Amino acid sequence: MWFADSDLYKWIEAASYVLASEDDPDLARRVEDCVGLVADAQDDDGYLNTYFALEVPDKRWTNLNTMHELYCAGHLIEAAVAHHRATGSREFLAVAIRLADHVDSTFGDEVEGPPGHEGIELALVSLARVTGEQRYVDLSEYFVEQRGRGRFEEEFETIEEIAGYEAGIATDARDVFYEDGAYDGSYAQAHAPFLDQVAVEGHAVRATYFLTEVADVVAETGNEEYLAHLEALWENMAHKRTYVTGGIGSSREGERFTDDYDLPNDTAYAETCAAIGSVFWNHRLFELTGEAKYQDLIERTLYNAVLAGISLDGTEFFYDNRLESAGDHHREGWFECACCPPNLARLFGSLEDYLYATADRTVYVNQFVGSELETDIGGRDVTVTQRTNYPWEDEVTLAVETAEPTAFTLAVRVPGWCREVEVAVDGEPVGVEGTGYAEIDREWSGETVEIVFDQPVRRLEAHPAVEADAGRVALARGPLVYCLEGADHDRPLSQYVLDGETTFDPDYRPDLLGGVVAVEADASVPEMGGWEGELYREAPTERVRKPITAVPYYAWDEREPGEMAVWLRTTSPRTGE
Amino acid sequence: MWFADSDLYKWIEAASYVLASEDDPDLARRVEDCVGLVADAQDDDGYLNTYFALEVPDKRWTNLNTMHELYCAGHLIEAAVAHHRATGSREFLAVAIRLADHVDSTFGDEVEGPPGHEGIELALVSLARVTGEQRYVDLSEYFVEQRGRGRFEEEFETIEEIAGYEAGIATDARDVFYEDGAYDGSYAQAHAPFLDQVAVEGHAVRATYFLTEVADVVAETGNEEYLAHLEALWENMAHKRTYVTGGIGSSREGERFTDDYDLPNDTAYAETCAAIGSVFWNHRLFELTGEAKYQDLIERTLYNAVLAGISLDGTEFFYDNRLESAGDHHREGWFECACCPPNLARLFGSLEDYLYATADRTVYVNQFVGSELETDIGGRDVTVTQRTNYPWEDEVTLAVETAEPTAFTLAVRVPGWCREVEVAVDGEPVGVEGTGYAEIDREWSGETVEIVFDQPVRRLEAHPAVEADAGRVALARGPLVYCLEGADHDRPLSQYVLDGETTFDPDYRPDLLGGVVAVEADASVPEMGGWEGELYREAPTERVRKPITAVPYYAWDEREPGEMAVWLRTTSPRTGE
Repeated sequence: MWFADSDLYKWIEAASYVLASEDDPDLARRVEDCVGLVADAQDDDGYLNTYFALEVPDKRWTNLNTMHELYCAGHLIEAAVAHHRATGSREFLAVAIRLADHVDSTFGDEVEGPPGHEGIELALVSLARVTGEQRYVDLSEYFVEQRGRGRFEEEFETIEEIAGYEAGIATDARDVFYEDGAYDGSYAQAHAPFLDQVAVEGHAVRATYFLTEVADVVAETGNEEYLAHLEALWENMAHKRTYVTGGIGSSREGERFTDDYDLPNDTAYAETCAAIGSVFWNHRLFELTGEAKYQDLIERTLYNAVLAGISLDGTEFFYDNRLESAGDHHREGWFECACCPPNLARLFGSLEDYLYATADRTVYVNQFVGSELETDIGGRDVTVTQRTNYPWEDEVTLAVETAEPTAFTLAVRVPGWCREVEVAVDGEPVGVEGTGYAEIDREWSGETVEIVFDQPVRRLEAHPAVEADAGRVALARGPLVYCLEGADHDRPLSQYVLDGETTFDPDYRPDLLGGVVAVEADASVPEMGGWEGELYREAPTERVRKPITAVPYYAWDEREPGEMAVWLRTTSPRTGE
Repeated sequence: MWFADSDLYKWIEAASYVLASEDDPDLARRVEDCVGLVADAQDDDGYLNTYFALEVPDKRWTNLNTMHELYCAGHLIEAAVAHHRATGSREFLAVAIRLADHVDSTFGDEVEGPPGHEGIELALVSLARVTGEQRYVDLSEYFVEQRGRGRFEEEFETIEEIAGYEAGIATDARDVFYEDGAYDGSYAQAHAPFLDQVAVEGHAVRATYFLTEVADVVAETGNEEYLAHLEALWENMAHKRTYVTGGIGSSREGERFTDDYDLPNDTAYAETCAAIGSVFWNHRLFELTGEAKYQDLIERTLYNAVLAGISLDGTEFFYDNRLESAGDHHREGWFECACCPPNLARLFGSLEDYLYATADRTVYVNQFVGSELETDIGGRDVTVTQRTNYPWEDEVTLAVETAEPTAFTLAVRVPGWCREVEVAVDGEPVGVEGTGYAEIDREWSGETVEIVFDQPVRRLEAHPAVEADAGRVALARGPLVYCLEGADHDRPLSQYVLDGETTFDPDYRPDLLGGVVAVEADASVPEMGGWEGELYREAPTERVRKPITAVPYYAWDEREPGEMAVWLRTTSPRTGE
């Protein structure tokens, strides 16, 4: 792939996150070898892209819509920032700065236009934060502002020359950028300037990277109009274009968003990278607003859409994540377009960034993962040690230690799915109202906070406009969405119907799928007898009881190949008079 | 298309059927012009195929799997037989005989193998019946025997040379004849000899033509083993691979049969020509067995899968017939591959062949269409005049006239869908048991038989193994399958749920769709309020009453473009304990 440079950079970034917390000399040596190779590949003027250098050296920056020079540059910069933070070395960072400076001196002057695949914009903000250089923020904002103002369409006149040996590039690019024969920039969010975009559109990875970088620009510039528009687009995505798993981008064709409420299950694309992009974007929106709903969506996405993207043993991956399978969809060891595996690696490598946040005199506990936070409040050291077996068990314990008694607010997220929560400080109950954050404002000097989430099995139904889920429910418990698999059932899954009145029996099974809470419930299947010589008939088919066993969606496709379904048929509620 | 000769022949055949019963000098002149053109195109040795003659004259008979020389020859012969029967002229028949003789002298000697698209075999039997020449039956049987015994696979080595200017032929042919990289002859029923075929397989038009010609061979040879195997294959098709409309061949890819019970609605292919092929085959099976079940399937197929293939005004056509549409599937005026329109023309032109049958001293009334039968029983003239407004009204009247009192059995089909029927001769009730044929054995001398079919609206359910129809019912009345259309409903069709207890209100509406019985019924839709800011939630959605209006499936897509659905959601029956 002509953008394979980016996969090396993502690997360096992921490895750097590991090196930040682990001493691994072998990994460190391999990283340094890669950094050396990258540094050697850089041109004297700072330009760096191996496809262009080797194949079409005279075509630099002549095709932005598809050829991904800026996208690769972005991943180099992100990797270099991570490498610098992990190792303290400035070697790779210097390469990134030279490349960023080359881009800065080129764009807005001799070349105009945004990248066809976003990514460099958020990397430039990271670089600005490491270097203190405001011009990288300005360049990021420039790219954001350029989007939706032309350039891409005319580039298709010359794309064949640039595509070089990659014969399929030009054709594929036209397929995704054109609709009914006419150019349509929405694939790359280039159909309109940001403030004129009324919904999340196009290639879902591009879209979430774009919205992430707009959020980064807002963080640096304080642009309130942009923030309000980001929130409006989030409403559109979260409430009209997101699978119950947190997956986004329902169409394989163009790997893209389609229409509101168009969320088919058996053809769901829901690319793993797009779910990761959604986590990036929600993380920024939380940082800008402090609102728990963004953390709720991060949790739902992490535990379902993202986690399903990698096998339990970490060696196989889903590129796309269906919510229903006839048994022909399986994780693979690698992909020719290898974006998802290193993206998972860098997300998991940097997972610590998503657990806590601090602002002024508040410490946010956002995600429930065994961990230790070391921070300071007004210069005083504060440590929060989190112990939990969430989501299998209901308790989370936070041990708060301070060097000296320190007053601050501990804001513990109460997930949106949670109907009942108990919070106690050293055994003394704390009143909690609704979801969002349970805020405990006090002087801390060595207390233990105990939180107990009630995690009943929930029957979720989708908005009636979601045609694919009509007459169906999805089961969830805590942050986990559940599914049925053929491995646990001897009838085709479409034959099971869940009664409205059934009770659920969640049970931790250490032997199953690496240890999961499985959920059993009564259901019914059709009596199969009496159909000899008939395919259609009037007499209603009798149904017989047959239980179902639901398992966490993230752990599907780990046993013998078979069917899978998230959305289960249910007896329709009776009509009200 | 390289097989477009066949469309001209089908047009001549259809026009000949018209000329058999109508005096139309202009049509007759156009037919003679066409016949003259065809005769002029014939080579001295009897060979006739314009694609080969003009493009690859040295490649005759070198590719049988795809290039359709024998298929086109078959349609020429069928047209010539129809033309001869309609006009008495032998001009076109002579062309057909020279072509058939050329094929006869070529195959089994210098060339071996069956046609990739069947058709010539049944035409040869027709030719044998007109000419009395047994060798055409033998040649037909030869082609049937050749199928599934090799040849096709090796032809792919040279198909590029023969495909000539039609660059796509070779690629497309490989796509349909290969499965996972390996040759698979099932597309053309060439995966095994006839008696080793365990299900109806492959391209559905080819399959039904093949089974039709096997039936023709049985009719001429009395091969009981073939007949028993045809009946077994019919069971497979009718009870595992046929849509409720009678449509067959569920997959667009390869226009083919897939697996038992694989009958998706929104992607249903159900090619119009395949439904016509099914009518051909069922007609032969009835003639071989006298069993009413074949007439039942003919009726279901004619009134639904076939009739939907043509617009009410006769000018637009469906090539494929979905059972569910989002509103993007419409009839068209013509197709590049123009097989269906002339196939409809020749079926409707010869519809009279499907209404009655006679055998020994029995007169079968098979389909209920206003018509007059003139026949004889033991040399005595018998006339049956049928008057009916079926299926809109329940009565059929048969006036039996005889030149002199004549004893015979009048066998009136009682459709499989009919639960109650009353039959009376001159007002005297006749006892009828079950479905099949109501047989009235008596001496006839001017009686009137009155038949009243009870036609309640039926809720049909599909075999539980049909995943696409799980939790759904189709409505039918008499021979007609019904559907919902967006034009009659202001909610998306997926939101309507039919209660188990609803009553149906059928009503003849002369203003609607050329005059149809529409069916109204109570149903419910979800209350849409209360979803602000939510896409998934626990609280069950209230439902509100909203009636549905169902219209005959054949008349869909005649109003503003919109949704259509045959299978309607219904409240699942409660589980028996």
